[in-house]
Amino acid sequence: MKIEMTSSQLERLKALGGNIEAGYCFESTAQREAEFKRLEKALVLEAKKNLNTLRTGDRRPMLCKVQEQLVEALTSEGFVQVVTPTIISKKFLERMTIDDDHALHTQVFWVDKNKCLRPMLAPNLYSVSKDLLNIWEKPVRIFEIGSCFRKESQGKSHLNEFTMLNLVEWGTAIGNRDNRIRELSDLVLKTLRIEDYEFEEEDSVVYGNTIDVVKNGLELGSSSKGSHPLDAAWGITDSWVGIGFGLERLLMIREQKNNIHALAKSIAYLDGVRLNIK
Amino acid sequence: MKIEMTSSQLERLKALGGNIEAGYCFESTAQREAEFKRLEKALVLEAKKNLNTLRTGDRRPMLCKVQEQLVEALTSEGFVQVVTPTIISKKFLERMTIDDDHALHTQVFWVDKNKCLRPMLAPNLYSVSKDLLNIWEKPVRIFEIGSCFRKESQGKSHLNEFTMLNLVEWGTAIGNRDNRIRELSDLVLKTLRIEDYEFEEEDSVVYGNTIDVVKNGLELGSSSKGSHPLDAAWGITDSWVGIGFGLERLLMIREQKNNIHALAKSIAYLDGVRLNIK
Repeated sequence: MKIEMTSSQLERLKALGGNIEAGYCFESTAQREAEFKRLEKALVLEAKKNLNTLRTGDRRPMLCKVQEQLVEALTSEGFVQVVTPTIISKKFLERMTIDDDHALHTQVFWVDKNKCLRPMLAPNLYSVSKDLLNIWEKPVRIFEIGSCFRKESQGKSHLNEFTMLNLVEWGTAIGNRDNRIRELSDLVLKTLRIEDYEFEEEDSVVYGNTIDVVKNGLELGSSSKGSHPLDAAWGITDSWVGIGFGLERLLMIREQKNNIHALAKSIAYLDGVRLNIK
Repeated sequence: MKIEMTSSQLERLKALGGNIEAGYCFESTAQREAEFKRLEKALVLEAKKNLNTLRTGDRRPMLCKVQEQLVEALTSEGFVQVVTPTIISKKFLERMTIDDDHALHTQVFWVDKNKCLRPMLAPNLYSVSKDLLNIWEKPVRIFEIGSCFRKESQGKSHLNEFTMLNLVEWGTAIGNRDNRIRELSDLVLKTLRIEDYEFEEEDSVVYGNTIDVVKNGLELGSSSKGSHPLDAAWGITDSWVGIGFGLERLLMIREQKNNIHALAKSIAYLDGVRLNIK
């Protein structure tokens, strides 16, 4: 008889950061229980060690540290940081063509009839850009790092709340846009110490034809360029490139974690470590 | 006949950062229009100068810079930064005694029947603390800086979305709590370069008897201490001190601005400067 770990045992070990191979079998439930206890104990010890390193070290989760590193890299490249509201108007969503029939619409968290949690940073960046383009000479370069919200399946690589980095450069020469997308993506990924990624063409529901950044089949980020049909709603006619990255995904890839929740804003994990390890 | 500026003129000048005294009168509407134009032009020039300083300087809004400074100051003092979700459960609110009859309840943004935007950081910090107290020796020191949400009148000193700093130290000796509250408040306010504030005793709807930090009649922050009746819901029995500050208010005071929205997460302002100044 084939005795495997129970699903709750597998879940617990996975939450603790363990990688249990499929088909790991035992000759008796007693042997299984002993092995589970041994593995759990070792993982809890490791977790406590990691928490202690955090506590006695620089005392900041990776999710916070990479934000600071990205701010440093992007401001050095001439990008100005902006911070905009989490709650946006329905009108702003509609300007992104996310109306009631749109695929993304069912994923939006509404706080009332006309206001929702932003599922992306783009509409606010459009709004700020429109004003800045009236004031500043081009190229105008801005970025934001902030929480976005989508009702997802909450699978191991999706989050309801995730931290987006979105940068946009207005006035990029038309012929240099694809090159610039690669250049700026390289800057972001070098800052995160991520290598061996690829660029892939993709059709986005919102942005049309885009270039995605992909590693091991997982989308790390996605870029776009304009002038673009969406620009008209904001009264913008300049050329541009824009890139968006989900920071938790970047960290999951870099840290080779099997669970994005461990690195996200969470009350169950702190900096990759499961907290219920009394 | 007494000719004053129109309310829209006053509003525009105020948004641009002007301080127009009450009772400022003109002998004709032509004189008023000329003076309005002169003032507006001067304020727009000043705004553009400030935006240019941002663009050619360190390219970060104050709201972002003070967060980095606070992180540096608090981690140096032994506090560990945590980052937790914006959306919290109704159960977490109820554990703060914010039920359907509570004064704060009408200010809560709900995203569904059982989930809302956090009006404060405390419940998440309680949850993380409860786990860490099982793992770490006391004193356990953590803090979070993040957006909180309350339906406010949106007056000149209130925001629907504001940036809270909340720190808590578990295991503070009972006799040293008041002293520690002053010490840690001083650390925060020194980091922000704010002086001449006072400590005032206050009755909080959530925390009972507390010590507030006040300057010029405006509440800058509020502290609390325990053991406290709320602790039981989290199974915590340790003594503690905790302090919360709204960062936009601290900046408004420091920068002597008359409008908190200018320094907040915004699409109408960037780092204190109104953006519709074509």
